[in-house]
Amino acid sequence: MQNTLTGKRVLVTQASEFMGPAFCEVFAQQGADVVQSNEPLAAAGAPEAVVASAGPIDVLVANLSIVAPSTPAVDVGDDEWRAVFAALVDPLPRLTRAVVPHFVQRGRGKILVIGSASALRGMKRASTYSAARGAQLAYVQAVGVELAPKNIQVNAIAQNFVDNPTYFPPEVQANPRFQERLAREVPLGRLVAAREDALFAAYLCSDAADCFVGQVFPLSGGWAAK
Amino acid sequence: MQNTLTGKRVLVTQASEFMGPAFCEVFAQQGADVVQSNEPLAAAGAPEAVVASAGPIDVLVANLSIVAPSTPAVDVGDDEWRAVFAALVDPLPRLTRAVVPHFVQRGRGKILVIGSASALRGMKRASTYSAARGAQLAYVQAVGVELAPKNIQVNAIAQNFVDNPTYFPPEVQANPRFQERLAREVPLGRLVAAREDALFAAYLCSDAADCFVGQVFPLSGGWAAK
Amino acid sequence: MQNTLTGKRVLVTQASEFMGPAFCEVFAQQGADVVQSNEPLAAAGAPEAVVASAGPIDVLVANLSIVAPSTPAVDVGDDEWRAVFAALVDPLPRLTRAVVPHFVQRGRGKILVIGSASALRGMKRASTYSAARGAQLAYVQAVGVELAPKNIQVNAIAQNFVDNPTYFPPEVQANPRFQERLAREVPLGRLVAAREDALFAAYLCSDAADCFVGQVFPLSGGWAAK
Amino acid sequence: MQNTLTGKRVLVTQASEFMGPAFCEVFAQQGADVVQSNEPLAAAGAPEAVVASAGPIDVLVANLSIVAPSTPAVDVGDDEWRAVFAALVDPLPRLTRAVVPHFVQRGRGKILVIGSASALRGMKRASTYSAARGAQLAYVQAVGVELAPKNIQVNAIAQNFVDNPTYFPPEVQANPRFQERLAREVPLGRLVAAREDALFAAYLCSDAADCFVGQVFPLSGGWAAK
Repeated sequence: MQNTLTGKRVLVTQASEFMGPAFCEVFAQQGADVVQSNEPLAAAGAPEAVVASAGPIDVLVANLSIVAPSTPAVDVGDDEWRAVFAALVDPLPRLTRAVVPHFVQRGRGKILVIGSASALRGMKRASTYSAARGAQLAYVQAVGVELAPKNIQVNAIAQNFVDNPTYFPPEVQANPRFQERLAREVPLGRLVAAREDALFAAYLCSDAADCFVGQVFPLSGGWAAK
Repeated sequence: MQNTLTGKRVLVTQASEFMGPAFCEVFAQQGADVVQSNEPLAAAGAPEAVVASAGPIDVLVANLSIVAPSTPAVDVGDDEWRAVFAALVDPLPRLTRAVVPHFVQRGRGKILVIGSASALRGMKRASTYSAARGAQLAYVQAVGVELAPKNIQVNAIAQNFVDNPTYFPPEVQANPRFQERLAREVPLGRLVAAREDALFAAYLCSDAADCFVGQVFPLSGGWAAK
Repeated sequence: MQNTLTGKRVLVTQASEFMGPAFCEVFAQQGADVVQSNEPLAAAGAPEAVVASAGPIDVLVANLSIVAPSTPAVDVGDDEWRAVFAALVDPLPRLTRAVVPHFVQRGRGKILVIGSASALRGMKRASTYSAARGAQLAYVQAVGVELAPKNIQVNAIAQNFVDNPTYFPPEVQANPRFQERLAREVPLGRLVAAREDALFAAYLCSDAADCFVGQVFPLSGGWAAK
Repeated sequence: MQNTLTGKRVLVTQASEFMGPAFCEVFAQQGADVVQSNEPLAAAGAPEAVVASAGPIDVLVANLSIVAPSTPAVDVGDDEWRAVFAALVDPLPRLTRAVVPHFVQRGRGKILVIGSASALRGMKRASTYSAARGAQLAYVQAVGVELAPKNIQVNAIAQNFVDNPTYFPPEVQANPRFQERLAREVPLGRLVAAREDALFAAYLCSDAADCFVGQVFPLSGGWAAK
């Protein structure tokens, strides 16, 4: 797959975390002019500032991440809950109101949210994280339908078991119990490569994917397929 | 369907709103000892106080509602976002940590979240509300899987087009354009009756439904069936 | 849950197999007049004859089963394919055309198809069976939407890991490897009891469930929840 | 998107119908060596003969189509049912057993089934067609999981409202009532272009998509998104 993003200016948030590094590398290979942001996004006004400083863009990749707490549901405290929603959820409407007027003016634009399959299938000790990721996916569905008539595509990848430094750092992958879990729970039998995820994202950010409306694409090696 | 809830003490939150009135009436007819709470739940500590003052219960019905804003996505402000999440999402971990230790001690218990199908299918001008409702459903999936081994069932109804005073007050129903929309978009051809919803909820709160794990049940007259 | 089916005449096909025994027992306890059929249904004309000999009914429970082959996909032969579709799929339109005119005349009626979650989530060595069960669920969705305006409800349970003599006979349940699989793959940690399934089916066959349109209800102890 | 299929030999069945023409054109542009088959596939042995005469291939695109009957469910006859399943469903295991041993030997291969979103969301007067398409999708899920460990990817597109000569011929598109339906029911507000579908299929047939396991990708302009 080559040159899918030639001529596209793509803003990637949290560019050094989660899927950021792989996406930025692959998107550049595909011809994109990648604008990397490493600003924190949780504070009020921060997302708007990131968009403003990026200048005109064709695509926004909302790559939002935070280390997932593994607190039992009964022990989840207000601070954990607030921090995770501040990182993963609250930036979304702020990013939208910053970037969409610009897209409307240009008559086109795309937002791709890098979400999680933890919102598609229940996992133990992941209630805070799953809830926040669920908010993301439902947001994408709603905004996707709303903005489709303006030729703006808003979609999401709902991933799990994709190789990335934030959620599957080397020490996790080196753990034999993790490898056993992978063999047992993930039909693919391996982590999805970061590059595979990035190529799918590149496709979704390209003009070829103008036809998708508020859609959530599971990408988890078959762990959750819908 | 009779006596499904005999001997059950059921706490219904926001009992005078959304599905509260219908549920309390039908649950009592089904033999439940219904504890109605009308306390606001958005503040820190409020959900825990409601659970504490209810005394021992068998079932918690998390009936959380707020009038849904119809703001275009691009105009959604921080205040709207925060208010809707405070009403619909933030109470969930607080209710869980208040009620679940008690359920664990008794060796059984149920939480039923009255959610929304707006998290299952995109709707225009509903991004804030859909996102918050999406957080609820993903939360239920995760906590349901986590608590199943403790014989605690956590499930959700994801409803839309159900007759209730909060979302479909008489003046909405009297609007011919609403009736046309119902005919066009809802295969059932009418609103689901509040009593139908309540009878389904009563079933899900009964011992007969011990077999469901973190499941989301769409209930929307066929508008969203999955 | 009591008396949900008082005054209802319910036809259960293949009454001695799959969910037949449990359903007939529980439905009778719920007040139904149960018409048990044990006729084979695969032949042309057979379903129509079963419906004709049952006389007037309020509800048809399409309880169709065949022992699931465990043939690798690459070895599936035409005979296996044909036999499984003849047993599980071909009876559906025949049952519909036999029973629905009668329902239309009475102004109401229900069809409940006892399907399988193998159509919701991929399993190895189950391609024939899954495909046939997938046909059932999609059929229910389509016919459910079509017949809703006539006050006829067509819905399905998509089950797996439910105790029944056809798919989980005692010798399977006694196998320690099966019990390990249950602990590993089924969040509920046990088989769903036949009685639990029957009580859910009784609810779905009752007047209380007039609000569901072509809906598929997963019931698999959390193995597949959507 | 360029050169995604360079070096790939791709067999497209029913190449002059449904998505065949667009796929063959776009796949060739993407560098594929396209083998077009126009043989009928319904008869026993026919799919195996098509595969045999194609010679070694890397990818099989199971593009199966038949004009969808619009018979009310109550009037569906055995002949319609049999013809539709013979065209859409019965070829699948035959294609699999013909092509997979060859894929296993080479250590890789892909099957992409061009299915229908009518199996995801109920439609009136489409029971036969929806059921057959539902069998396809469930088959893909099962075989996809089974063959993943052999590095064989089996996935499906579940489409509707995609421009193609079989289901949306010019006379349909010229009908103002069809255009009204499109505006009302399809959030995209237009048919998905055949080329858009073909580019997505090309991506799924490429090495970039080795990570998908038995997955169903809705593609229907938002009509059915899951």
